[in-house]
Amino acid sequence: MDFDQIFHSQLDALKAEGNYRSFAELERKRGAFPRAENHKDGTVSEITVWCSNDYLGMGQHAAVVQAMIDCVQTSGTGSGGTRNISGNNHKHLLLEAELADLHGKAAALLFTSGYVSNWAALSTLGSRIPNAVILSDAGNHASMIEGIRHSRADKVIWKHNDWRDLDRKLAAVGDRPKIVAFESVYSMDGDIAPIKEIVQVAKAHGALTYIDEVHAVGMYGPRGGGVSEREGLADQIDLIEGTLGKAFGVVGGYITGSAALCDFIRSFASGFIFTTALPPAVAAAATASIQHLKTSNVERLRQQEQVAKLRARLDRLGIPHLANESHIIPVMIGDPIKCRMISDILMRDWGIYVQPINYPTVAKGTERLRITPSPCHSDADIDHLANALSALWHRCAISHAVA
Amino acid sequence: MDFDQIFHSQLDALKAEGNYRSFAELERKRGAFPRAENHKDGTVSEITVWCSNDYLGMGQHAAVVQAMIDCVQTSGTGSGGTRNISGNNHKHLLLEAELADLHGKAAALLFTSGYVSNWAALSTLGSRIPNAVILSDAGNHASMIEGIRHSRADKVIWKHNDWRDLDRKLAAVGDRPKIVAFESVYSMDGDIAPIKEIVQVAKAHGALTYIDEVHAVGMYGPRGGGVSEREGLADQIDLIEGTLGKAFGVVGGYITGSAALCDFIRSFASGFIFTTALPPAVAAAATASIQHLKTSNVERLRQQEQVAKLRARLDRLGIPHLANESHIIPVMIGDPIKCRMISDILMRDWGIYVQPINYPTVAKGTERLRITPSPCHSDADIDHLANALSALWHRCAISHAVA
Ligand SMILES: Cc1ncc(COP(=O)(O)O)c(C=O)c1O
Ligand SMILES: Cc1ncc(COP(=O)(O)O)c(C=O)c1O
Repeated sequence: MDFDQIFHSQLDALKAEGNYRSFAELERKRGAFPRAENHKDGTVSEITVWCSNDYLGMGQHAAVVQAMIDCVQTSGTGSGGTRNISGNNHKHLLLEAELADLHGKAAALLFTSGYVSNWAALSTLGSRIPNAVILSDAGNHASMIEGIRHSRADKVIWKHNDWRDLDRKLAAVGDRPKIVAFESVYSMDGDIAPIKEIVQVAKAHGALTYIDEVHAVGMYGPRGGGVSEREGLADQIDLIEGTLGKAFGVVGGYITGSAALCDFIRSFASGFIFTTALPPAVAAAATASIQHLKTSNVERLRQQEQVAKLRARLDRLGIPHLANESHIIPVMIGDPIKCRMISDILMRDWGIYVQPINYPTVAKGTERLRITPSPCHSDADIDHLANALSALWHRCAISHAVA
Repeated sequence: MDFDQIFHSQLDALKAEGNYRSFAELERKRGAFPRAENHKDGTVSEITVWCSNDYLGMGQHAAVVQAMIDCVQTSGTGSGGTRNISGNNHKHLLLEAELADLHGKAAALLFTSGYVSNWAALSTLGSRIPNAVILSDAGNHASMIEGIRHSRADKVIWKHNDWRDLDRKLAAVGDRPKIVAFESVYSMDGDIAPIKEIVQVAKAHGALTYIDEVHAVGMYGPRGGGVSEREGLADQIDLIEGTLGKAFGVVGGYITGSAALCDFIRSFASGFIFTTALPPAVAAAATASIQHLKTSNVERLRQQEQVAKLRARLDRLGIPHLANESHIIPVMIGDPIKCRMISDILMRDWGIYVQPINYPTVAKGTERLRITPSPCHSDADIDHLANALSALWHRCAISHAVA
């Protein structure tokens, strides 16, 4: 059996489709975000990152950096074990208390990543609640899909953001425990769910509500509690899931909810139990970041400003981008090879880094550049990006109607 | 539908069985390992940790601590994205090169944890190699079991460490792609697999060999390449998986293997693709740790010495522990409530922390104290532990034959 041959043939198919991924090799420069160093073919050049999910630049915030360094100094580099076996640290509990408070919940539970939090929570709920059905928005993230799949619970997919469809499907399920799983900000289109209607419908059918606020925590709501905080709906959602790796600028994931819910996942989720806990220093840094964003609006306001400026520039230039109410600006290309080509030229000729987003991150035919302005991008950065895109749109004669 | 009621009733069942878990709340003290602070009921006391998986104390090693701090200083606290979308860092690539070299492989791939590396690699191999069958050792870790389960490939379980049984089962599978998955050091019994025989049998049937060296990397082999390095068998194993969170003292997981194998997992594994990459500072710390343990034998030798000393003491005291050839000393108790009680007394009266290991980490009826001496434990620490166990064994009239 020639296994490498099997691997090569599937990789070749990816390449033929234009979906083979190569990664830019960066070095982040604290204090200089969004500037970074790009390593390529043995040379290093300075570039501007326009596709980071460190949305607010908190990864270089003085308080966050200092909290991490201080904790490495006092506690070392790792946790030394699983949460159960010697790895449970005072810093984890402080972070969980901070997270519960952020979302106005009784409890929170920390995971090694947002991916693992979704996967572990949904697979545990789906497999351990007898006879459960999970109703999943058609646009849900891979980590939710895999968690639902792993649970082997019955799954019903409802049309993206369509609470009427959800209502019909909940009615059709009948008298069984139901879990409604969806996101607030969808990361690739940047659209925002009609949370109020979804929650109303779900509650009318007695369903448990599960929201992924990964692309919203830190950025929406007066304390950064996400869209559910901004809309005053957090108390109507049973489980709020989030990440520490995007707007909070560190790494890790979590869920918040009732004490019983969090204790249940803590006690039964394989993906929580059987893995080394995050380093105390990671927890300390995340705690500092959340604390800062609970009281500071500066980063959020400045981000919204820069997003609005770039959108207006793209509109004036006639460069098509998906309309949405979030901080994510998807410039649609619709072809994987063209998408990579544009990205390559931006990097090579303009020092602008925007990763091409191809399948499987988005559906084939909807390939795009996904641009995420941050409070660290200056007006000059926006000018430079707009000029580059404009030149490229003309030079490459990219249709202005591809979107 | 009262979901909290469902959660409570399952938690109550756990409690009735004695399997409800409460975590010790520690603060690690860099420079003072294995000493730590224990938070309990609002008071803080100093204790000695005897159940850490920071096996060699590398989490407080000066070079590792410094590498982490330096990188937080230069690059900030997070990676800012998935490996594909702006999160791929020069430090990740340096670490992957170090790991490939450690195991003598062409390539390596980094994951957010050892759990995720097993889960993602096995689920991808099992689901994408057409018609694959996975032959899994009966003692494999939860992360491997869940990965195999998630792949939905056919699975055949062979008797723990029994290569004759594996041989029979491989023969019965017939002409299909076969993957043989096993561990080197089994973490709860501390026994070591007959790697040579397993690999011979697997190769005779044309199977791909997959080994989890999570509890061996850093500690076995002249450069810390694990039991497969010590036995000179690494080149006969197709995929070696490991963690950065145990002997290396940080957090994260990885696989190593051929370039095609790693590229295949990189390109198709959901658990690799759709998650924020580890902070560059975590990668830098892990790299420093691996580099140190490639050339330094001091930590390994001192650990082996302290393990042997404690074993000899337990033997003289007549305290039953599972015999094995590793660094793990399982003191068998065989009852979840008694196991927790002993652990509680050790902590309260002696300042000794050994977490009770109950179901689901081990099978019911095999509850134990799992003791892991490190190079940081002094002879006086060993005396203190031996005295405590001896007193307890007499006081509680624990049978000397429970094991
Ligand atoms: C909607 C959504 N949920 C969850 C995740 C996973 O979070 P993390 O990166 O912390 O693993 C991501 C992206 O990474 C995401 O886009
Ligand atoms: C055998 C084995 N494999 C994998 C893992 C997971 O590794 P990590 O802790 O890095 O997630 C563990 C324990 O945590 C383990 O015992």
